Amino acid sequence: MHIKKPLSFDKLLSTIEKLAAYSETNIADGVTRLAYSQNDELAHQYIIKLAQQYGLDCQQDIVGNVFITLPGQDPSLPAIATGSHLDSVPNGGKYDGILGVMAGLYSLTQFQPKQLTRSLTLIIFRCEESSRFGISCLGSKILTGNIDPQKWHETKDNHGKTLYQAIDEAGYQSAKLEQAELANDAYGAFVELHIEQGKCLEAANKAIGVVNGIAAPTRFRVDVYGQADHSGATPMSQRQDALVSAATIITTLNSLANHEAQLGTVATVGKLNVYPNAINVIPGHVRFYIDIRGIELDSINRVVQGLQQLIAQIMASQPITITLDSLSQEHPVKLNPRLCQTISQLCSEQHIEYLDMLSGAGHDAMYMAQKYPTAMIFIPSKAGISHHKDEFSSPDDIILGATLLTKTLEKLANQKENN
Amino acid sequence: MHIKKPLSFDKLLSTIEKLAAYSETNIADGVTRLAYSQNDELAHQYIIKLAQQYGLDCQQDIVGNVFITLPGQDPSLPAIATGSHLDSVPNGGKYDGILGVMAGLYSLTQFQPKQLTRSLTLIIFRCEESSRFGISCLGSKILTGNIDPQKWHETKDNHGKTLYQAIDEAGYQSAKLEQAELANDAYGAFVELHIEQGKCLEAANKAIGVVNGIAAPTRFRVDVYGQADHSGATPMSQRQDALVSAATIITTLNSLANHEAQLGTVATVGKLNVYPNAINVIPGHVRFYIDIRGIELDSINRVVQGLQQLIAQIMASQPITITLDSLSQEHPVKLNPRLCQTISQLCSEQHIEYLDMLSGAGHDAMYMAQKYPTAMIFIPSKAGISHHKDEFSSPDDIILGATLLTKTLEKLANQKENN
Repeated sequence: MHIKKPLSFDKLLSTIEKLAAYSETNIADGVTRLAYSQNDELAHQYIIKLAQQYGLDCQQDIVGNVFITLPGQDPSLPAIATGSHLDSVPNGGKYDGILGVMAGLYSLTQFQPKQLTRSLTLIIFRCEESSRFGISCLGSKILTGNIDPQKWHETKDNHGKTLYQAIDEAGYQSAKLEQAELANDAYGAFVELHIEQGKCLEAANKAIGVVNGIAAPTRFRVDVYGQADHSGATPMSQRQDALVSAATIITTLNSLANHEAQLGTVATVGKLNVYPNAINVIPGHVRFYIDIRGIELDSINRVVQGLQQLIAQIMASQPITITLDSLSQEHPVKLNPRLCQTISQLCSEQHIEYLDMLSGAGHDAMYMAQKYPTAMIFIPSKAGISHHKDEFSSPDDIILGATLLTKTLEKLANQKENN
Repeated sequence: MHIKKPLSFDKLLSTIEKLAAYSETNIADGVTRLAYSQNDELAHQYIIKLAQQYGLDCQQDIVGNVFITLPGQDPSLPAIATGSHLDSVPNGGKYDGILGVMAGLYSLTQFQPKQLTRSLTLIIFRCEESSRFGISCLGSKILTGNIDPQKWHETKDNHGKTLYQAIDEAGYQSAKLEQAELANDAYGAFVELHIEQGKCLEAANKAIGVVNGIAAPTRFRVDVYGQADHSGATPMSQRQDALVSAATIITTLNSLANHEAQLGTVATVGKLNVYPNAINVIPGHVRFYIDIRGIELDSINRVVQGLQQLIAQIMASQPITITLDSLSQEHPVKLNPRLCQTISQLCSEQHIEYLDMLSGAGHDAMYMAQKYPTAMIFIPSKAGISHHKDEFSSPDDIILGATLLTKTLEKLANQKENN
């Protein structure tokens, strides 16, 4: 086995463009490549074939995760892994996921077998997007033992097809998915390159983000029940206005999050509906959703506690009923400080201006971080747009990201000690 | 001409029930008797025939307003008028409007011609509800010279029929509607009995409301434009959250109105929509509607000024754009204090506990008040429900209201001096 030639920047960029054709929707409507769909299978096969053409060894596990390996000199040392995913949301962009896969392939082809001390492995995780089955990071969850067979067994897509049927029909074996879990010492480190999906880098005018944590969402559904009355005929003293109470919660939640802003915690009310929603009727019911994210669990908990206290205060002082239903309470993930430092140092050496930052969105790296020292590198997303046909990262930024990933993997693969 | 017999309480109550059958919808779905519809015409003809059966003289003007008169001893003195309307909103209640018409008919039949010093006139105003043509109090506007021919000429219902076509097809003459304006000395006073459409009387446990003013709505449409961004990937410091700004306006507006509550001013945000309205997207645009009512114009203006100041502050301190579009700025109407006192005194003499109160909803009395000393009497609406099939006022309250109206009209008709 040998690498026939390094994958070029042109090939890296053109393959990202080419992969966009594996889509159920026309490219003008964005990329639709749902997990385990026919286009998703074809895209995986395309990458496997490409890697093989460059001389790399490719394996698939029992659920279709792909492992592409460049052997190192010392097989007794855990390999260094990189990776991302190929599936997309409906009408998504051309860069999300694929960037990390193609940059990983670029990296592996820059070296010959046994050139580096450790092996390099590119992992293509299956079903990172929750769009089809409501389960995100399926592949990395399986690899790290975060499985929930009872829930997963019943999970169906919009057409009534179960997750397990979809896995099996794609040629894999859902019945044995537990067997795909990786050994705890399989990898010495995992580094994922991804587009930012936000605009922190653009705002800071930096081309690289060194991600020190991934903020998992804590979500609530809030129902505020007041009394729908005539807007003209009901004096202020007799009102039970659900929207005024909801507005108080929204402004207070924003203040609570602003107090925690230095720790990176954010809180959002993005969805809100008023009932009956008529100009001359005092709102009797308001339903809204709270999305809190951060990497400091204590900080998130302070926001949640402040929210709960406020709700108790409102209910104690007015005839308003408020219910707070927890939809998800995932724990934030801190990434490996030594790995982050390694990446930062490489940036400094290359005179790349970088930003220490958080990831607001979830990634496979969240689960890999449970078993292995893990880091992430971000490149800018134009205007922060992602999961949308207008998603764009510039060729210069892609090349810079792929180059930095290569340098990082090279350095880690030549370290004998673990991180 | 003579009154054959006084209309009985039973006939008063049973006629209100009977009129509910003149409806496009089944009574289980409420009363639908839109202005100038076939059912509206039939209801008017039914009442005219009933009044004639009792011995009263009935006239209709050029747009169908009905005038039912009991002559007094001195035709040189302006008559005393009462009245209300027979049209309804879609799926409305059985009491709104009809109560005042039937109680007026009850009152007129309690006396013989020339028994009272002045004549009594029951006016049935056409098209009080704005449901069909978006124009409220059409009949009373025409009678008081508040016409807007240019706007009215173009006004159409949901089926594309113009207001003027509807008037003409019902047998009236839209082309001559200016001729229907009443002389400034036509009436010495106007008193309208109506259901409250709120729950102030219920809350105060009083059966009669003496209405000292009618609060006309000042309405605004507010658009708050921020920036839609990812809820996880956008730090607090980079947000332009339209909903947080909207919530600040809502809570501040509520405080502004609470400060004015003793003057009877109220402010409501009843309708609000968030865009794009997704749990993981910071709201980029919020549109909502403000409805401010009161009878003290200064008080309303203080609320509006506070609102404008707040909006200017928000726009000065954040990259948020807020537009405030005026939809209506009608002036509140104060009713005649001497008439209110007359009604209050009658209540005291009859040992009726009454409440001095405002009307939050608009009525024909608003326009009659421009030409004549005007007052209103309210009876309770169960749970404040109105414009709905569950609208209900008890037989006892209806009888009390009709009796008080009769006493009031009798007293006013026997006064030689004007109010």
